[in-house]
Amino acid sequence: MTVHRSVPFGRPSPAVVETVTAELQKRFGNRVVTSLAVRQQHGHSLTWSDNQPPDMVVWPESTEEVAEIVKVCAAHGMPIIPYGAGTSLEGHVNAPHGGVSVDVSRMNALVAVHPDDLDCVVQPGMTRKTLNELLRDQGLFFPIDPGADASIGGMVSTRASGTNAVRYGTMKDNVISLTVVTASGEIVKTASRARKSSAGYDLTRLFVGSEGTLGIVTEITLKLYGIPEAISGGICPFPSVRAACDAAIMTIQAGIPIARVELADALQVRAFNLHSKLDLPESPMLFVEFHGSEQGVQEQSQRFGEIAEEFGGGPFRWATKPEERTKLWQARHDAYWSCFTLRPGAKTIATDLCVPISRLADCVEETHKDIEATGLLAPIVGHVGDGNFHLTPLVDTDSPEEMERLGAFLDRLVRRAIAMEGTCTGEHGVGQKKMKYMEIEHSAATLDAMRMIKRTFDPQGIMNPGKVFYV
Amino acid sequence: MTVHRSVPFGRPSPAVVETVTAELQKRFGNRVVTSLAVRQQHGHSLTWSDNQPPDMVVWPESTEEVAEIVKVCAAHGMPIIPYGAGTSLEGHVNAPHGGVSVDVSRMNALVAVHPDDLDCVVQPGMTRKTLNELLRDQGLFFPIDPGADASIGGMVSTRASGTNAVRYGTMKDNVISLTVVTASGEIVKTASRARKSSAGYDLTRLFVGSEGTLGIVTEITLKLYGIPEAISGGICPFPSVRAACDAAIMTIQAGIPIARVELADALQVRAFNLHSKLDLPESPMLFVEFHGSEQGVQEQSQRFGEIAEEFGGGPFRWATKPEERTKLWQARHDAYWSCFTLRPGAKTIATDLCVPISRLADCVEETHKDIEATGLLAPIVGHVGDGNFHLTPLVDTDSPEEMERLGAFLDRLVRRAIAMEGTCTGEHGVGQKKMKYMEIEHSAATLDAMRMIKRTFDPQGIMNPGKVFYV
Repeated sequence: MTVHRSVPFGRPSPAVVETVTAELQKRFGNRVVTSLAVRQQHGHSLTWSDNQPPDMVVWPESTEEVAEIVKVCAAHGMPIIPYGAGTSLEGHVNAPHGGVSVDVSRMNALVAVHPDDLDCVVQPGMTRKTLNELLRDQGLFFPIDPGADASIGGMVSTRASGTNAVRYGTMKDNVISLTVVTASGEIVKTASRARKSSAGYDLTRLFVGSEGTLGIVTEITLKLYGIPEAISGGICPFPSVRAACDAAIMTIQAGIPIARVELADALQVRAFNLHSKLDLPESPMLFVEFHGSEQGVQEQSQRFGEIAEEFGGGPFRWATKPEERTKLWQARHDAYWSCFTLRPGAKTIATDLCVPISRLADCVEETHKDIEATGLLAPIVGHVGDGNFHLTPLVDTDSPEEMERLGAFLDRLVRRAIAMEGTCTGEHGVGQKKMKYMEIEHSAATLDAMRMIKRTFDPQGIMNPGKVFYV
Repeated sequence: MTVHRSVPFGRPSPAVVETVTAELQKRFGNRVVTSLAVRQQHGHSLTWSDNQPPDMVVWPESTEEVAEIVKVCAAHGMPIIPYGAGTSLEGHVNAPHGGVSVDVSRMNALVAVHPDDLDCVVQPGMTRKTLNELLRDQGLFFPIDPGADASIGGMVSTRASGTNAVRYGTMKDNVISLTVVTASGEIVKTASRARKSSAGYDLTRLFVGSEGTLGIVTEITLKLYGIPEAISGGICPFPSVRAACDAAIMTIQAGIPIARVELADALQVRAFNLHSKLDLPESPMLFVEFHGSEQGVQEQSQRFGEIAEEFGGGPFRWATKPEERTKLWQARHDAYWSCFTLRPGAKTIATDLCVPISRLADCVEETHKDIEATGLLAPIVGHVGDGNFHLTPLVDTDSPEEMERLGAFLDRLVRRAIAMEGTCTGEHGVGQKKMKYMEIEHSAATLDAMRMIKRTFDPQGIMNPGKVFYV
């Protein structure tokens, strides 16, 4: 494969910005905004990063309007940055090359629900919590749950997952079909509504996880699930991270269809206690949940309890009441926010890694040693069933020394995970901050294959430039 | 998107064939075969189609050897047709443009098993039944089960599934990573062994289902599952196809984790009886299976029985003994072969369609009417949980009149499924025979997106030419 290493990208000239602004304002009126406050609000996401504002923000209301915007931008070589709920963690929505932030938050309709087919059609600005509120009356739910109330479009774009992935898979497993506006303004429907198909290339999964660099997702058909008849869950402390991981592995191997199995290290448990006013024992801990019939979840819970005991875990504290379960899981979901209680005033650089589950204990143990040696404060939570874990280092971003120390640590962390046959990100995506690790994780031939796709779909390089990999 | 409609392809000239033969024989000796018998054996697959032999067959024994073969072919513009077990159904391994059939049957090693990670690494010539025999001692299995003992490489290439897909998904859901030799002879490893990743484009799923038109799969990392503690199953007759479908939908909606739910129409049940010496009532029938704990499968079975009764189904016949269960499922798996008993001497044109499950009863009912009006003999089996169903028309391929009647029927069948938001193939793949339907199922923009990928990865058009879509 011959590869051109450079797709040109600086910043659009002031003249181009002026022209595009005028053309879009003519068409979309006050749905185009150029004020600094709004641009800055669209210039960074949840975790700490430099603010990189776009040149303007536009709010389309339909697939066709997105196509119109893209065509205007394409005609002038203007960068396009899709924007959903702004909850991503790796700088996905920043505009390092300027351009037009296409905010799809007004495209937030639940277009259709098909209960017999267990699917629904949504617009990309729909958020996951709102979707589940709208589905509840029909006894249905959508299981993918990144911590934040992310938009479904954003979740498609980062190939998001969350605590339920061990049972229900990730976004890649739960998207049936997409409508996408490509870099040339064409509207591509990737697949029919059939639950499976062998009719050609899997365009759906090509766009899932492409972080807006190949097109803008404007409609999504999602798999749904019946709300389980019964849900039971609880927490179980373990003497070590390894014991907790081994218990989780044994549970999965035994075929127990565990819906959630989440690890928190002792420091993270302390943060939960501080933030959510809990009184959990501050040792490595598994949060577990079972979905099924009343009888089924009871049996699963009991068998898990036995396995936990074999590995020295316990006592097992069951959350039998829904309020108690909700409180515990809310604490788990607030993991990111809870960290701030450990070092008030600090900022966080949230990161995630994923290794084969057999290596998770090794990876976390080595990382704990490294955290200590580096003198960092960095709680760990993990989706044990997938081998995916999160670190939330708390840092003073104004201290160059501390930032440098953190940078070297993060570099070792990623290399450690990749050396264990893992990946530099299990669910957050690459964005800007993990681009340099793509060259460590993937061979030149593999990256070239990705670049070939990028250049074919976006020869001008206008779709979310400066993300995923160096083109 | 500007699209060039023609990638050139006739046949390689005799001089090119001679040169490639000489170069490959020099390197691979008697692992290159040009005899007509062997070429014809590689010139068609399981279902009836014209024999289209390649110019030669070569048996590589490693990824590096595959890369060498591809480089020789690429240098001379010689077509390459990957060949696994030869069990595909849509003419995937035929060589309409001649070329080199790359038979991977000697690359059939189980490279590694990782029980804690529930995964394994295999070469593409490994067949699914052999794999499960090798895994059994470790209490593990690989669930995807197309009827034939297909190669894993072939199953990757057609995005195969089978009777377990409602519980375990299809090949797209069960491949963690691939090694692929691309059209230029580069070796691409699509992903790490982590169970999930958001590190870049999903090359794994780009190659899954690409039918050898983008590269040759040379190594596969697969998800595995623990063999369930208990399996129970049985059969249940229904007064109509609709009643059977409704019972299946209700079962899935109720969250009962059914592992298999297979529909056979009355004619197919007659074929089972004739072929497998059974005495089943000749009415629409569901074959079901449950995987779980002893207590779990008992509860699931009982609840399914109650639902079946609500829809007029029964009596429910349970196969409590493993031998009895194996006999029933063997009959189901022999569906293709059993059809010949209905019209000895006839040939079959196996086909598959997939619609949203809510439309399955409509689609089968309309198809039954059409079968009768057309004067065909065509039993139907279906993976109800996916909305996927198979027809096996029995025809006299020497009768032009009958073949024309069949052709018109198949055309109506595909259009019917697509009109119901379905797809022209749920699991067999496009091959040669469904190419014309790709333009009905997909919009021009969608097909253009697929063509862009094809031309980027295979600018010469040498990878399995004449398959999937008209380039």
